[in-house]
Amino acid sequence: MPEPVAKTNSGRFFEDFTPGETIVHATPRTVTTGDVSLYTALYGPRFAVQSSDAFAKALGYPAAPIDDLLVFHIVFGKTVPDISLNAIANLGYADGRFLRPVFPGDTLSTTSEVIGLKQTSAGDAGIVYVRSIGRNQRAEIVLSYARWVLVRKRRPGTPAHAEQVPELPKVVLPEELGQGCPAIELSAYDDALAGSPFRWGAYAAGEQIDHVDGMTVEEAEHQIATRLYQNTAKVHFDAYGARETRFGKRLIYGGHVISLARALSFNGLGNAFHIAAINGGRHVSPLFAGDTVFAWSQVLEAAELPGRSDVGALRLRLIATKNRPCGEFPLKHGDQYDDGIILDFDYWALLPR
Amino acid sequence: MPEPVAKTNSGRFFEDFTPGETIVHATPRTVTTGDVSLYTALYGPRFAVQSSDAFAKALGYPAAPIDDLLVFHIVFGKTVPDISLNAIANLGYADGRFLRPVFPGDTLSTTSEVIGLKQTSAGDAGIVYVRSIGRNQRAEIVLSYARWVLVRKRRPGTPAHAEQVPELPKVVLPEELGQGCPAIELSAYDDALAGSPFRWGAYAAGEQIDHVDGMTVEEAEHQIATRLYQNTAKVHFDAYGARETRFGKRLIYGGHVISLARALSFNGLGNAFHIAAINGGRHVSPLFAGDTVFAWSQVLEAAELPGRSDVGALRLRLIATKNRPCGEFPLKHGDQYDDGIILDFDYWALLPR
Amino acid sequence: MPEPVAKTNSGRFFEDFTPGETIVHATPRTVTTGDVSLYTALYGPRFAVQSSDAFAKALGYPAAPIDDLLVFHIVFGKTVPDISLNAIANLGYADGRFLRPVFPGDTLSTTSEVIGLKQTSAGDAGIVYVRSIGRNQRAEIVLSYARWVLVRKRRPGTPAHAEQVPELPKVVLPEELGQGCPAIELSAYDDALAGSPFRWGAYAAGEQIDHVDGMTVEEAEHQIATRLYQNTAKVHFDAYGARETRFGKRLIYGGHVISLARALSFNGLGNAFHIAAINGGRHVSPLFAGDTVFAWSQVLEAAELPGRSDVGALRLRLIATKNRPCGEFPLKHGDQYDDGIILDFDYWALLPR
Repeated sequence: MPEPVAKTNSGRFFEDFTPGETIVHATPRTVTTGDVSLYTALYGPRFAVQSSDAFAKALGYPAAPIDDLLVFHIVFGKTVPDISLNAIANLGYADGRFLRPVFPGDTLSTTSEVIGLKQTSAGDAGIVYVRSIGRNQRAEIVLSYARWVLVRKRRPGTPAHAEQVPELPKVVLPEELGQGCPAIELSAYDDALAGSPFRWGAYAAGEQIDHVDGMTVEEAEHQIATRLYQNTAKVHFDAYGARETRFGKRLIYGGHVISLARALSFNGLGNAFHIAAINGGRHVSPLFAGDTVFAWSQVLEAAELPGRSDVGALRLRLIATKNRPCGEFPLKHGDQYDDGIILDFDYWALLPR
Repeated sequence: MPEPVAKTNSGRFFEDFTPGETIVHATPRTVTTGDVSLYTALYGPRFAVQSSDAFAKALGYPAAPIDDLLVFHIVFGKTVPDISLNAIANLGYADGRFLRPVFPGDTLSTTSEVIGLKQTSAGDAGIVYVRSIGRNQRAEIVLSYARWVLVRKRRPGTPAHAEQVPELPKVVLPEELGQGCPAIELSAYDDALAGSPFRWGAYAAGEQIDHVDGMTVEEAEHQIATRLYQNTAKVHFDAYGARETRFGKRLIYGGHVISLARALSFNGLGNAFHIAAINGGRHVSPLFAGDTVFAWSQVLEAAELPGRSDVGALRLRLIATKNRPCGEFPLKHGDQYDDGIILDFDYWALLPR
Repeated sequence: MPEPVAKTNSGRFFEDFTPGETIVHATPRTVTTGDVSLYTALYGPRFAVQSSDAFAKALGYPAAPIDDLLVFHIVFGKTVPDISLNAIANLGYADGRFLRPVFPGDTLSTTSEVIGLKQTSAGDAGIVYVRSIGRNQRAEIVLSYARWVLVRKRRPGTPAHAEQVPELPKVVLPEELGQGCPAIELSAYDDALAGSPFRWGAYAAGEQIDHVDGMTVEEAEHQIATRLYQNTAKVHFDAYGARETRFGKRLIYGGHVISLARALSFNGLGNAFHIAAINGGRHVSPLFAGDTVFAWSQVLEAAELPGRSDVGALRLRLIATKNRPCGEFPLKHGDQYDDGIILDFDYWALLPR
C-alpha cells in the first residue's frame, strides 16, 4: 500500500501564497439568534438596534441586525486555517467596510485575495497582505477588509515572489460609509430606549470619554467566544502547548478585546449603534485570562454622510487597557504606549442626527 | 471650545429621584430561543412546559413560554443603570406578579415608577422604592414588581423629598394569580414526561422537600448569565476594582442564586411549572465563584385559584445554601439564619390539579 | 397529619429494574438554533453541513441538521435520572444508529427498554442493559442505542431477576447505515467550502490521522455543556460533594470528550460530515478541568452503502488523550492503554464519494 496522502491541514507558509490568487475559505456559517444571545452573554452590549427587533423595525430595518463585530469575527475566523495558521504576528488591518447589514438566518462565507507579498530581510518569513471579503448566501458583500500578517517560510531558502506592497487608505472616506445602514426613520428613534440623549451633533472632535466600567475575562469566556467564530488559532485554546511559549499561557483572541471595549463604550456612546468602517487597529499588548479590561474613546473627527440627513459619522479612537481604569485617558508618552494599554482601534461609527 | 457635556452615565443618586416620576429604562430586548438555550445551559432547568414546544402546545400554549425567571432577570437588568448603579444595598422586593407569558420573539422593555422615598437618619443616603413594569412589544404588561434599594446621596447635605413609604402586600393574594398561565388542557398533561407524579393535591402546607443536588458556580458562568440579562452592575464583573471592596472579589448577582435554586427544585417539585408571583425574597449572604449551591423548599400554603380547576397554587419558601447540603433543612435559630444560608425566597408556583 | 410521600427522586436501584419494562424519561426538549450556537461555541465544530443552511440545502437537506452528537447528548441526558443516578460505572454502549436527521424546532424525547440484567457475584450491585430510543415530535425514531451500566442495589440481600444478557453487535453493518442521511446532491458538494479535498475514496483502512490541535477544558465549559443536555449526574457539578470522592473533584461528562475529539477530527476528516452509527466506546480514563484534549483517528474499514452512490462509510477509531499530543499515535501496549489515553471510540462516518 502506498503511503496515504497526509490529510491534516498544516497551514500555508509564506511561499504558498501567490499574488492575485483568491482563496475560498471553509465552513460557511448561518448566523442565528443563538449567536446573538451568546454574543450578548459574552460581552454585554446594549445598543438598542441590535438588541430589539421592535426598535430596529421602527427605524426601518427588517429585523434587529447582527452586531457588526460579530459579523467581523465570523468572517475573520474562516481565514485563520488558510492565512494565519503559521503566522508569527498579525501586523495590522485597514480599509474595513461594513457594506450590508446581516440578519439572523443569513449564511456567511469568506474569500481572501492575496494583494501583496514582502519577504523579510532575513529571508525566513514574509508579510502576506490579503483582502478578505465576507458574503451572504446571495453572494452580496457584507464586509471587506485588508489585513497583513507575518508568515513563516516552510524552508528559509525558497525564492520568493517579487515584492509587492499594496496601497491601503489610512482612513475610510466619509463618502464610503453608510452602505451597511438603511435609511433611518429618525422620528422613531427613542433616546430613552436607546439609553443616551447624545446624538451625533453632541460630540466634537477631540472629546474624550471614559467608559468607566471594567470587565474581567475568564478562560472559558474567550474560548467559548473564539470557537463561536470557528477561529482555530491554537494559541487561544491549548494550555498544554502554551507552556513552551513566550507567555507560558493561552493568549486571548484580539477580537475579543475589541468586542469587550466596544460593549463598554456603550456608556458614553449609547447612540453609536453601527460600526460603518474599521480604519485600523493595533493590539499593543496581549490580554490574558484574569485580566480586567477598561476602555476610553476619543472623538477624532465628525463627518456628515453625503446625501444623508438621518445619520452622521464619528471617527473614534477606542483605547482599551488591562488592569488600569481609564479616568486619566492613558495613551502615549512619545512613541511609547502607556502601561496597561492593549488596544488602539480606529473606526467610524454612525449615530442618529 | 467649551468643555463638552459629560457623556458617561454615572447613575442616579438619592436626590435625583422624584416621587411619582416614571423612568423609561434603556435597551429593549427581543427574547429568543438563543436565550432559552443559554438559560438551560447555565442552570439546567427541566420543567417540561418551558423545555418543549410540543408539550406546551398540547397544554394550550402557542409555544414553550420563556422561563419566568429569565423574564424577571431581563426586566430587572434594565433597571440597574437608572436605579441601582449607586446603590449600597438591595433591600427587598414584593408584589411581583407574572401577568402574561412571554414567547421567543417578544421584545421586553421596562419602566419604573418611584413609589416611595425615605432618607436615612444619617442623611447621606436613602431608600428608593420603585415599581418596575416589564412590557412586551404590544405594551402588554408581562411582569410587575416592587423593589427598594438603599442609594447614596451625591452630596450628604442635599435636602430630601418628604418621606413617603408605600404599603406593599406581604403576599400576593390567590385571586391575583394565574394571569400568566393560560387554561391548561389537563388531559394532555403527561406526568411521566413532566418528570413527577406529584400534582398540586399531593402537597400539604408544612411539607419540607430537600432538593438534594449541589451545583458549583464558576466566574465565567455568572458573568455570562448576568451579561445575558444586560445587567451592568459592576460588582459582578470587575475583579480589579473588587480588590478594594469588603469581600475582595466579584459578587454573584442575586438572581443567579434564585435561578440555580429554582432549577435544583425540579427534583421534588417537577410539576411546579410556572412562577405566578414573587412575594418577597432576601439575599441573606453573598455567593462567590467556587461555592456550591444547595436548596430545599417548604410548602407554606396551598391555594385554589378562583374559577379555575386546571391548576392550583403552592406558596413555597425556597431556601438556598452554599457549601451545605440541605438534608437537615437549615433555616433559623431565633432571628439568626443558620450558617450557609444565602437565599430566603417566597413565591407562588402553579401546578396541574 | 400523615407523613407526606417523599417527593425527591433518589433514582432507581438495581432491584427496581424489570426485564422488558419500558421507562418513559422526563423532559421533552425542543432543539433550537440556540443549542446549535452553544454547541459550536463549546467545541468549535466546522463541518459545513451542520454549520450552514445554504450548504445543507444545496445538498438536499431542508436545513442544516443538528450535529449528531448534540442529538446523542440530549437523548442520553434524559436517561440519567432514571437509569444511572445510582450507577457505579458506565460500562459501555453498542449498536447506536442515527436513523433520521434532527432539525431546529424538533422536540426530542427518550424511552428506555430494559433488555438485560445481571447481578454481580458479590450480590450488592448489578449490570442493567437498556436500549434507549430518541424520538422526535412525530414519534419517529431518530436515534437508537444500547447501553449498560453497573447499578447499586438498595439492599444487598434483595433477590434479583434471572440473569439475562442481550446479544449486541460489535459493529453496525453497512446496510444499516445511511438512514439518517438524505440522498446527497453530489454536484453541489463544494470541497473548498467543506474544508477538505479528501472524499470517501481518498481514505484507506489502516490509515492514521493526527488531528494536531489541542483544546483545554474549563469547569465552566463542561458544566454549561452538560446542563445544556439536561444531564443531571451530580459528579459533573458538585465540587463540594466531590471532595469526598476518589478523585476529589468534578468529573467531566464522557460525552464532552467525544464531542471535543470529534470537533478536533475535522482537521483531517473535514468531509466526514455525518455520524451514521456508534459501534462502541470506552472512557479509558477520566478528564478533569484544566486538562488539554488531543485526538487522532484510525481508519478501520471503508464500506459502500448498498444502493447508494452519493456517500460512502468509514469506520473510524477515534482516540483522545489528555495532555499528550498524538503525533506518535498512542494506543496500547499489549492490553494496556498508553498513558494519557482517555477515549477509545468506534463509529461509522459518512463522506461524499
